[in-house]
Amino acid sequence: MSNNIKEDLLLFNELVDVFLEEERLKPVTEYIEPNNVQQLLDIKLENNGLSKDKFKEALKQLILNTPKSSSKLFFNQLFGGRHSKAVLGDLLAAILNNSMATYKIAGPQVSVEKEILCQVYKLIGYNKNPGGTFPTGGSMSNFMSLVMARDKVNLEIQQKGITRKLVAYTSENAHYSVSKNASFIGLGKSNVRYIKSDLYGRISVMEFEKQVEKDLKNGFTPFYLNATAGTTVLCAFDNVNELSKCCKKNNMWLHLDGAFGGSVIFSDKYKRLVKGVNLTDSFCFNAHKTLGAPLSTSILVVKDKQDLYNSFNSKANYLYQTHGNEFNLGQTSFECGRRNNALKFWTMWKAIGLKGIASIVEEQFQLANAARKYIISNQDYSLYSFDDSLSICFNYKNFDPEDLCTKLFEMNSLMVGYGTFKKNRFIRLVIVNGENSLDDVTRFFGILERFTEEHQEHIKKI
Amino acid sequence: MSNNIKEDLLLFNELVDVFLEEERLKPVTEYIEPNNVQQLLDIKLENNGLSKDKFKEALKQLILNTPKSSSKLFFNQLFGGRHSKAVLGDLLAAILNNSMATYKIAGPQVSVEKEILCQVYKLIGYNKNPGGTFPTGGSMSNFMSLVMARDKVNLEIQQKGITRKLVAYTSENAHYSVSKNASFIGLGKSNVRYIKSDLYGRISVMEFEKQVEKDLKNGFTPFYLNATAGTTVLCAFDNVNELSKCCKKNNMWLHLDGAFGGSVIFSDKYKRLVKGVNLTDSFCFNAHKTLGAPLSTSILVVKDKQDLYNSFNSKANYLYQTHGNEFNLGQTSFECGRRNNALKFWTMWKAIGLKGIASIVEEQFQLANAARKYIISNQDYSLYSFDDSLSICFNYKNFDPEDLCTKLFEMNSLMVGYGTFKKNRFIRLVIVNGENSLDDVTRFFGILERFTEEHQEHIKKI
Repeated sequence: MSNNIKEDLLLFNELVDVFLEEERLKPVTEYIEPNNVQQLLDIKLENNGLSKDKFKEALKQLILNTPKSSSKLFFNQLFGGRHSKAVLGDLLAAILNNSMATYKIAGPQVSVEKEILCQVYKLIGYNKNPGGTFPTGGSMSNFMSLVMARDKVNLEIQQKGITRKLVAYTSENAHYSVSKNASFIGLGKSNVRYIKSDLYGRISVMEFEKQVEKDLKNGFTPFYLNATAGTTVLCAFDNVNELSKCCKKNNMWLHLDGAFGGSVIFSDKYKRLVKGVNLTDSFCFNAHKTLGAPLSTSILVVKDKQDLYNSFNSKANYLYQTHGNEFNLGQTSFECGRRNNALKFWTMWKAIGLKGIASIVEEQFQLANAARKYIISNQDYSLYSFDDSLSICFNYKNFDPEDLCTKLFEMNSLMVGYGTFKKNRFIRLVIVNGENSLDDVTRFFGILERFTEEHQEHIKKI
Repeated sequence: MSNNIKEDLLLFNELVDVFLEEERLKPVTEYIEPNNVQQLLDIKLENNGLSKDKFKEALKQLILNTPKSSSKLFFNQLFGGRHSKAVLGDLLAAILNNSMATYKIAGPQVSVEKEILCQVYKLIGYNKNPGGTFPTGGSMSNFMSLVMARDKVNLEIQQKGITRKLVAYTSENAHYSVSKNASFIGLGKSNVRYIKSDLYGRISVMEFEKQVEKDLKNGFTPFYLNATAGTTVLCAFDNVNELSKCCKKNNMWLHLDGAFGGSVIFSDKYKRLVKGVNLTDSFCFNAHKTLGAPLSTSILVVKDKQDLYNSFNSKANYLYQTHGNEFNLGQTSFECGRRNNALKFWTMWKAIGLKGIASIVEEQFQLANAARKYIISNQDYSLYSFDDSLSICFNYKNFDPEDLCTKLFEMNSLMVGYGTFKKNRFIRLVIVNGENSLDDVTRFFGILERFTEEHQEHIKKI
């Protein structure tokens, strides 16, 4: 088949029409056992290309059988929903296909990225010499912050490797990338301290201070704290303000991982949840988690941009041929060639304004409050999570959450996951789809209740 | 403005029409000084969203002023051109918006990724227990290989950090990520040896062996060689077959960085350039560099998939809730949430077959040969590169290559870069756009010649 973009744009439009209609009619895709995919769908790659008709059919079957992460019954993970203005930007990025490494090849797209970063600096109160970039996701944002913190202890580490007994801190509820990253950067997982959390899932400030003191006594150099704005399971917000005191005192880098909950910075009403974010050394959030931007839209900002340059700049004469550092964005990123992940967030912001983004955040909290209220007012449910959270953790009657979630998924009823906190296991309903309404949340509980009634004999009990 | 995907798809189609027409009429975008972007274009982000008309106008201005990486006059970097079948897949991925972490949320898209990997294993002759993933790019592929090699020396490094005197090797012409990655993983840049290359830009096998012996004598542990299939500047192919002997003898990990040139594996005619690829421990290539797939389409394969699991698997109960490792792809990647970068390469392969991909590769070499022939047969040119390369390095008369390339770009005539090898500086014409024809290559030289004639007084001389 020929390389004809106009023809394929027509095909794209046709396929999307079919998909969107299916998403409306069947919000939960029919489950296929992974081992059966190759028999049921035409996935095989061969020597010869397909005919036009067969190609279209193969694509249609594939997309109709793909889980619909933007449907109104997808509550499974820390992303979902679709803001069409962000999708528009992402589609354009695929057509434009610029690499964000240099101004020469990205042109004004560089300004698009820089404008978003500038606005974020303002929102969080980084006002001296801030820097930022669009890493590939939350794991990468955490990684970059850890590398900068490590290099800040002693820039010679870049040349010689780690020679001092460094130790990093995070919450026992932190994202699993903190541990992976400690391995990747040569710190070693055993040099990460997982600080106990309080009853609400936030790092215990006292425990943190105690551990730092203990490590200092034992000859370690505490250098990094990874705090969380919106922990993965409970969506708890660490007390940045309090934690920053101990970090400042001990000259430690304070990173706030807001991959999940960091978007509260856009709302005057909820930015109190990250009070003290201006005291951090770095902060990240993912617009693909709570704001309906396509994967991935991840933003990392750094209080002092020199730290970004120190750790990520590299000479590359074949690459940086025009313009200064300021406009050659590859000098502050892990990647060399880099997809334009800024445009989609820019198109969204441009279209709905800061106010529009704020209202998405506020509506989500409102829906989450409604879901909590439903649970509290119904004695068949037990609630495990707290106010100011987008993650509603609960159990229904005595059904085993793991078995129930798996059956809901395999029987095409709902996409939702489960989690654990302080030894409690529960269903985790994540309210991140900005397009959902109160009705959709009520519908969620209705489906759950009907499903358990119909299948009660086959669902495990706690 | 409202969140309405159908409306925004119409807008997308309208904008793309305008952009494609502009790409045809003005293949080189008018240059804007970076500091002038904010005055000339409406980039500013505000509290309120724009009206529909103003939004459309802002987008139109932005895309029309963005450098056209897919045009027929873009020869600037190691990517360019657009295969519409790959674009189609990428557009669909943005709409579907699956995260490739788990089967539960990616469904049959997991099989799409696995099918591509399987075919790549076959092509390069990994036939025991291979593994693979889609990293975010070449830098990340190199990073992952380095981490695996490091962990293979001693898995305790993950827990404790590096304790032995490890040393890694690469070519003096290797991609700059090798040095960055050495810093990132805690090895230290000073523990990378840059081996001299021969006259053709390939690692000197003798120099490599000598250096390994020397390091062994000095108590270092050689553990990793990063060889290159298609070096950044010259597009030289290291002699994998020969290098593998020394690696095998010393129990070193052999990674072949084929980000630029690795796509030769698809062509029966050119796969000889990576002879011995079956002897490597890992290999990567970027379909976004030479095959016209949108950024990024990067594939990393590993001879023994256990090495991927050893270095990148992490427990995450909140995430991996159904199905085994085999189908939960997040367990072998750096990232947690991961964009679907496989679909675009799959749609392309499905549509044009292996044969179609092979013919893209072969046509590029044919064009490169024609360009070299043109240069050799014209005494105003001097050639600095060699056969079997997609990178045509040359100078024209006595014009300074750096100044000439910058002026060509700023005066909207051509997008091309320059490079250096063994102290020679030259223009680097990269032949990676599969849609270009012999006429387009001839046109390149014609534009260059006319431009220098018209502006000869203002272009620096060597």
